[in-house]
Amino acid sequence: MKFSKVPEATIRRLSTYARYLEVLEEKGEAVVSSAQLASDCGVNAAQVRKDLAYFGEFGIRGVGYYIKDLYDDIKTILGLNREWRMAIIGIGNLGASLLLYKDFLEQHYKIVAAFDINPSVVVGRVSEKTGKPVEILHPDQLKEVAKDRKIDIAIITTPPSEAQKVADQIAESNIKGILNFTPTLIKVSKGTVVKNVYFTTVLDNVAYLLQSKRR
Amino acid sequence: MKFSKVPEATIRRLSTYARYLEVLEEKGEAVVSSAQLASDCGVNAAQVRKDLAYFGEFGIRGVGYYIKDLYDDIKTILGLNREWRMAIIGIGNLGASLLLYKDFLEQHYKIVAAFDINPSVVVGRVSEKTGKPVEILHPDQLKEVAKDRKIDIAIITTPPSEAQKVADQIAESNIKGILNFTPTLIKVSKGTVVKNVYFTTVLDNVAYLLQSKRR
Repeated sequence: MKFSKVPEATIRRLSTYARYLEVLEEKGEAVVSSAQLASDCGVNAAQVRKDLAYFGEFGIRGVGYYIKDLYDDIKTILGLNREWRMAIIGIGNLGASLLLYKDFLEQHYKIVAAFDINPSVVVGRVSEKTGKPVEILHPDQLKEVAKDRKIDIAIITTPPSEAQKVADQIAESNIKGILNFTPTLIKVSKGTVVKNVYFTTVLDNVAYLLQSKRR
Repeated sequence: MKFSKVPEATIRRLSTYARYLEVLEEKGEAVVSSAQLASDCGVNAAQVRKDLAYFGEFGIRGVGYYIKDLYDDIKTILGLNREWRMAIIGIGNLGASLLLYKDFLEQHYKIVAAFDINPSVVVGRVSEKTGKPVEILHPDQLKEVAKDRKIDIAIITTPPSEAQKVADQIAESNIKGILNFTPTLIKVSKGTVVKNVYFTTVLDNVAYLLQSKRR
């Protein structure tokens, strides 16, 4: 398999295909046609073939894809054949709800630490939601905890004004992956992967498309 | 201005520029160079010029951009010179935390209704978080409420298994914009704008990039 310069949109669609295949596998199905897979994932069959072609040859002409095989292959491509260990930094409303976010738990992501500058204030609120005591640590402990608990990815859910400071602490802790939920454009060194999940940017996109249709 | 076929990535960057310009304007600054704007937004100057060129000519050679003018122009382009009225459907942990999400309130988005199939169960929990009573309605009321309260955009934060049913109710209510936080690939009619914000897809992207670096 070659991994150079695969478009981000392809990786995003591979995630979608993987989740779709997982559902089919749970239903006990064995084979899916490329037309069916494409249609159910909201793309066309040529797109599916193009996305997969970055990584090799999949599927059998006239048959389609063996669900288990393709699912396993995509998991290997995406790096989902292992567990990713995560920390959440900033336990406000959003951080607390991510602590409880079931889909993380069901997938290959495990939250192994939670941090807030005011641990004593939030611990009760979070415990009440989870139904069990949750340990909230101070971000100053990040470096030590990151090493002990082998943290791969940090999720930033602090106020925007704190995001860069936290990103610097993440860098010092040698964590190479960041999911940033704040609008702050954080600066990181070259080896670090940052993806931004800022809801308002997506809403702006919806607003733009709605109003441009009206013109 | 021409609005045909503008790449989604351009619209996303325009959001980022707008938020950056807003901060500069609040600081009382008048002018920003294209190099500064580009660098602070994490892109290069050619990209900024290309993004803006879809919509006309902006900026003054040798000076840069007048902050207030460019901010106003981008707001007009994105449709942010008006209020967008939203409903949240599905008030679990994520839905409840979006009800409190400050950035929506500070921007041009207003949540005007909240729905859950079990209103009586969630109302207390949400009220406790907001500090005031919150009215939670049953999704069967969506059509009527959408008309009364002029809802433009619906946010889906239901369990994945309910997302398509809710999308159908949204269609019947004549709401044309959807922000879908579930992994379900909902089907809608042609005139409806759907954007998906499924965190795990973004995490898959981080995982892919981290592991492909290690190869």
